[in-house]
Amino acid sequence: MARDNFADRLMAFIAEKNSRVCVGLDPRPDDLPECIAPEDGRPGPVVEAVVRLCARVLFSTAEYAAAVKLQSAFFEQLGMAGLVAFFRLAEAARDHGLITIADVKRCDVGSTAEAYAEAYLACGCGGPAFDAVTVTPYLGSDSMAPFLRQAEEWGRGLFVVVRASNPSAAELQDLRLDDGRLVHEAVADLVVDWGADLVGDSGYSSVGAVVGATAREHLAALRERMPLQPFLVPGYGAQGGAAEDVVEAFDGAGLGAVVNSSRGIMYAYKGEPYAERYGSDGFAAAAGAAARDMRDAINGALEGAGKLP
Amino acid sequence: MARDNFADRLMAFIAEKNSRVCVGLDPRPDDLPECIAPEDGRPGPVVEAVVRLCARVLFSTAEYAAAVKLQSAFFEQLGMAGLVAFFRLAEAARDHGLITIADVKRCDVGSTAEAYAEAYLACGCGGPAFDAVTVTPYLGSDSMAPFLRQAEEWGRGLFVVVRASNPSAAELQDLRLDDGRLVHEAVADLVVDWGADLVGDSGYSSVGAVVGATAREHLAALRERMPLQPFLVPGYGAQGGAAEDVVEAFDGAGLGAVVNSSRGIMYAYKGEPYAERYGSDGFAAAAGAAARDMRDAINGALEGAGKLP
Repeated sequence: MARDNFADRLMAFIAEKNSRVCVGLDPRPDDLPECIAPEDGRPGPVVEAVVRLCARVLFSTAEYAAAVKLQSAFFEQLGMAGLVAFFRLAEAARDHGLITIADVKRCDVGSTAEAYAEAYLACGCGGPAFDAVTVTPYLGSDSMAPFLRQAEEWGRGLFVVVRASNPSAAELQDLRLDDGRLVHEAVADLVVDWGADLVGDSGYSSVGAVVGATAREHLAALRERMPLQPFLVPGYGAQGGAAEDVVEAFDGAGLGAVVNSSRGIMYAYKGEPYAERYGSDGFAAAAGAAARDMRDAINGALEGAGKLP
Repeated sequence: MARDNFADRLMAFIAEKNSRVCVGLDPRPDDLPECIAPEDGRPGPVVEAVVRLCARVLFSTAEYAAAVKLQSAFFEQLGMAGLVAFFRLAEAARDHGLITIADVKRCDVGSTAEAYAEAYLACGCGGPAFDAVTVTPYLGSDSMAPFLRQAEEWGRGLFVVVRASNPSAAELQDLRLDDGRLVHEAVADLVVDWGADLVGDSGYSSVGAVVGATAREHLAALRERMPLQPFLVPGYGAQGGAAEDVVEAFDGAGLGAVVNSSRGIMYAYKGEPYAERYGSDGFAAAAGAAARDMRDAINGALEGAGKLP
């Protein structure tokens, strides 16, 4: 399914797999399923356990998902071996037929941003690159330019944090400007500009936006404000977002967004309704069931809204 | 000079060394002094050359500087070996009597932010930790809480990007809110809140602010708005800031800020007035001279403003 433009590739994956699920791999080293956690907490075995956890969750969820998002912090926390694992798991995810997103939320300028963009998006320097990367907008256009260049050169994408899903996101992002816009709406307008030259045949740009499921009241307005931006929607499940909350992120054909769940999938075995059926030993099967149920719930909500046949 | 509170330690270093210089280590792998650059560009030798470049610049500038800031992007770009170098150089910098700042500009929430905070600030997990870390504010209080906890526990600090020095910083940071504040002033008010519980005997908080030297018109206002925040002032030298531009960052006793120069020190051998005297072979000596001259220029400007005797 390889295509030149990231947005085209993403939409093709969504359509062909009929899934809008993005599996979030946030492996917390101090919260591993009993059956794979090393008893003594030594660093080497912890990294191995993290890799096994992620690899097995990938394997069991790939069928039900369009994309996977790896949260780099948990891998950085494990030192060098963790970073090797970060890139290896991205490679495995690609082999499993998933769009890969490096959730690094980088934010820097000039040659620094160039270095980040190259580290995560460029091909040919040894490591496997990700399909897309998350970035934050506080430093403006200078911080985007290197990512836009890599996106164009390698067919990669980026997701700019516009309105996050965490409780304190509003502190800065929802302040009102004197021209009537909210701060995150001003960011949305910048994102539209940044993505204008990277629109593919699908009608979507390779410059997407992170818009939290918990910001339901903003989602419709932001969809209208950024009609060409793919949305990466975090906050589903553990953070409180439900299938009905994310419907507005999608266009009339059920395209245009992927919805991320991290804890809700990776740690599904701990919560209802999976805990009883699976338990710690069945963490991978529970993750698969959770991804499948999430796919179906979102598709059901889209059908209810007339956005899927 | 070890003290429990980061801000106290930083002010003590500034006073004892009578220097407000922060040496920025931004080693661009494709721009190494001829005398140490590997001829064939192989990854291993490139990392070695980067380490030699940084180590020698550290050695020659330590006497004239209070702090060193390592830009993580350039090390991440070099893969695993680069990250090992990143932490080893921080260790070396500490041994040279410098405050160490990890310029990572992280921005994430919850357990992710916890992982970042632990990776860069916590002691005792094998790697040497940095004294302080840079973060960006777009996600609000949630993204700060883990860093504040680590700062309190380990006597570390953070520098929140309030007003950056790059040309496009104004796009978002200088928008005006309907309550009359600029966006970066609203961020400054948040930073004051975040730092309120971490004020040391010096009168400064361990929660500092990044305020660019190129934002001279904002510097005095921000100093007044954040009286307890140590400032990390980038943009000196290569980005156009001069000694007179940064005077407003300091209090009446010449304390309260460090001024960063990266290219202007590390690549001093390429520019005037050092190129003629030193050349590529003398890159380290040129860096030392540039750091000394920068220290003297800033101290001279502070004397001129009556902020140093």
